[in-house]
Amino acid sequence: MKISVVYSLPFRFPFSVFHLPMLAAEIIAIGSELLTPTKTDTNSLWLTEKLNEIGVEVKLKTIVGDDEARLEETIKDALSRSDIVITTGGLGPTEDDITRTVSAQAVGRKLTFNEEVLTEVQARFRSFGREMPEINKRQAFIIEGADVLPNPNGSAVGMSLKIEEKLLVVLPGPPHELKQMFENFVLPKLRELAGEIYVKRKVLRVSGMGESAVDELIAPIYKVYKNVNTSILFNRSEIELHLTAQTKTIEEADSLLEELSIKIAEKLGNAVFAMNGETMEAVVGKLLTESGKTLSVAESCTGGLIAQRLTEVSGSSAYFIEGAVTYSNEAKIRTLDVPLEVIETYGAVSAETAEAMANGMREKARTDYALAVTGIAGPGGGTEEKPVGLVFIGYADESETKSIKINLPGDRYLIRWRTSQAALDLLRRKILKNPEIVR
Amino acid sequence: MKISVVYSLPFRFPFSVFHLPMLAAEIIAIGSELLTPTKTDTNSLWLTEKLNEIGVEVKLKTIVGDDEARLEETIKDALSRSDIVITTGGLGPTEDDITRTVSAQAVGRKLTFNEEVLTEVQARFRSFGREMPEINKRQAFIIEGADVLPNPNGSAVGMSLKIEEKLLVVLPGPPHELKQMFENFVLPKLRELAGEIYVKRKVLRVSGMGESAVDELIAPIYKVYKNVNTSILFNRSEIELHLTAQTKTIEEADSLLEELSIKIAEKLGNAVFAMNGETMEAVVGKLLTESGKTLSVAESCTGGLIAQRLTEVSGSSAYFIEGAVTYSNEAKIRTLDVPLEVIETYGAVSAETAEAMANGMREKARTDYALAVTGIAGPGGGTEEKPVGLVFIGYADESETKSIKINLPGDRYLIRWRTSQAALDLLRRKILKNPEIVR
Repeated sequence: MKISVVYSLPFRFPFSVFHLPMLAAEIIAIGSELLTPTKTDTNSLWLTEKLNEIGVEVKLKTIVGDDEARLEETIKDALSRSDIVITTGGLGPTEDDITRTVSAQAVGRKLTFNEEVLTEVQARFRSFGREMPEINKRQAFIIEGADVLPNPNGSAVGMSLKIEEKLLVVLPGPPHELKQMFENFVLPKLRELAGEIYVKRKVLRVSGMGESAVDELIAPIYKVYKNVNTSILFNRSEIELHLTAQTKTIEEADSLLEELSIKIAEKLGNAVFAMNGETMEAVVGKLLTESGKTLSVAESCTGGLIAQRLTEVSGSSAYFIEGAVTYSNEAKIRTLDVPLEVIETYGAVSAETAEAMANGMREKARTDYALAVTGIAGPGGGTEEKPVGLVFIGYADESETKSIKINLPGDRYLIRWRTSQAALDLLRRKILKNPEIVR
Repeated sequence: MKISVVYSLPFRFPFSVFHLPMLAAEIIAIGSELLTPTKTDTNSLWLTEKLNEIGVEVKLKTIVGDDEARLEETIKDALSRSDIVITTGGLGPTEDDITRTVSAQAVGRKLTFNEEVLTEVQARFRSFGREMPEINKRQAFIIEGADVLPNPNGSAVGMSLKIEEKLLVVLPGPPHELKQMFENFVLPKLRELAGEIYVKRKVLRVSGMGESAVDELIAPIYKVYKNVNTSILFNRSEIELHLTAQTKTIEEADSLLEELSIKIAEKLGNAVFAMNGETMEAVVGKLLTESGKTLSVAESCTGGLIAQRLTEVSGSSAYFIEGAVTYSNEAKIRTLDVPLEVIETYGAVSAETAEAMANGMREKARTDYALAVTGIAGPGGGTEEKPVGLVFIGYADESETKSIKINLPGDRYLIRWRTSQAALDLLRRKILKNPEIVR
């Protein structure tokens, strides 16, 4: 999985540093398919974010299969030690869907048939022009005393049940059903239970600096903020600063985060490219849109990745005019007018070729800016003089053509990704230095 | 997270249908960072695959923070109900790293200082030209009676401990440390414990057919194989068939999977594009390499995604010559020689434009094949006549130029992905029908 974040500085877990007491939650994901090598529970990531925001800490997560004994034990254990227990999945109409039965057993209550739920499920089927299959009747059984949580997106209703001071919440597995149910019918209850604690997170993204350098510069700033925890994380190609504030009002959290993030941005300057977790392509797109400028891109080793990232942003047709994936030398000569002598003298991977590509692209597409990349992504193709990871990024605008040389670590995937990030970042810095642009 | 697989047919979990008894394992991932909204345990996916292969079923997974009471209870519970318990993480040298202490408590044993481990950790530091910090001494404490599992990639050794008939295995969290330790020092023990059961998986990938149609055709074939479980899963743009064999010898598993997969491929024909889980771009690349043919690609709505996928395959420079991301109309005209009248008469999103793009691309790049795509990826830009998801794919070779029209569901990301898949699949089918190619 290529999207995981790597924590390379010692990670201080936000909640351990806070002083307001937080409620403890556990999440139980149910379904044997979640115990295979290709699939895992991801609902809990979304739930964790929502819970943290209202000051509830997730203390434990369990993933359990369609296994009655283990599930019953898990629910009992969770209720014995945590304030809030949320289960996801296992509410379908088949025999494998054991959550209803087992959660009732775990809390020592009966399942009762709910005529109203049945009527709604039947109506749902009828609205699609179908009769409800007999098997779906199972979905109308509710734990005695539980509140029914309606499901506008499916036939499985959820349940919430107060047991002494604890809350058991039973949600369906499909994300679009779970999310709507949780936001509409669970979150308001939990907010009441959690009281006046707000936890809010803000993510700043930083390019072109190492973690230690960032930390050295900003530690004196963030250490002053006792109610904001600052974590420094390393992603595929940049540093992320996660600021987490815990306060008694939402306004206080917002203003603390705003204040701290501005101080950090002032210290780090242009290295901060996103103040709210935006992607590099979104940031570059915004700068181009605001300035009414256009862009073209010529790619060799990234093979289309830069163009693809830029055009993933909806509305990019306003500034992205054209891209060329000139993988072969002939294509560089034919399409970008790179002189054969340049390639023969300096090689296809060289500052001279990168600059000629950028120039040729800009002239051809008649854009304000052009970017070009050429490099060795590996695993093959490296030499002692030009090793895998050597990349040249070319840049052209109306007044200058230049290039930068970088050496990137990583496998083929990472080298290509990091090249695309460095190229977009070069453009971003060029635009920001351009005095006609006001941010 | 865009990479998860969606199970849309009722998912029959492989192991429930098998008759040879399998050992039960639980995995406990330790670390508070694994309970944040941006990170989750992924080591367990790799471990699950390895365990399944030797006939061990994972029955439950727990993710627990740096919380002594909950961790101790989790380890005790797991050992009380499962044959094998594997913990990951929490073996570092700091106070937060509680796994050593808590796992010893959970099994009622003491930690003892191991001079040999200390010597090795010290030597490791010295090999980097550093003295071992005092704090790393903690990593030399071992549960009484446990076997030490060496760590060639880090300073945290693992442990394995037999308790009555159960096995507790304690592994470090960083994947490159965990994997090497598990393969070298844990897997051999587990194989002995698990006895003569082999579970092997083979993944076939199918394009251009729906799940029900696939199932109808192949159910009579796979139902005959009692020792192979067949699951039909829907991925972003294709069907996956997961065949899982459980047998007493590895040869039997291999030959059953081989036999069944050939029967399925014969029934489904060209719709099966991968017999071993390969990506579409890898399959197309192999066909092009084998036939010595070349390819160029002109992209509008996919914005470089097709070129990027093709060039993600190492060695693709042998057949991928050039790509053009002609996002604007001017670029289509300038770079691909699409006649202005064609765009004016039929629109940029039309069969005529797609064909002109493919033709223009092929002539410019002088390749054997050319692909072109133009469509509406959304969220904006759709009309009643040309809605979001409408895509035309153009194809050109030396003897013909043609195009297909498709209507794709999904958001911008999915429409772009599915378009790229459909374009590559069109080329694949064209190559396979070409009589000069022998598969």
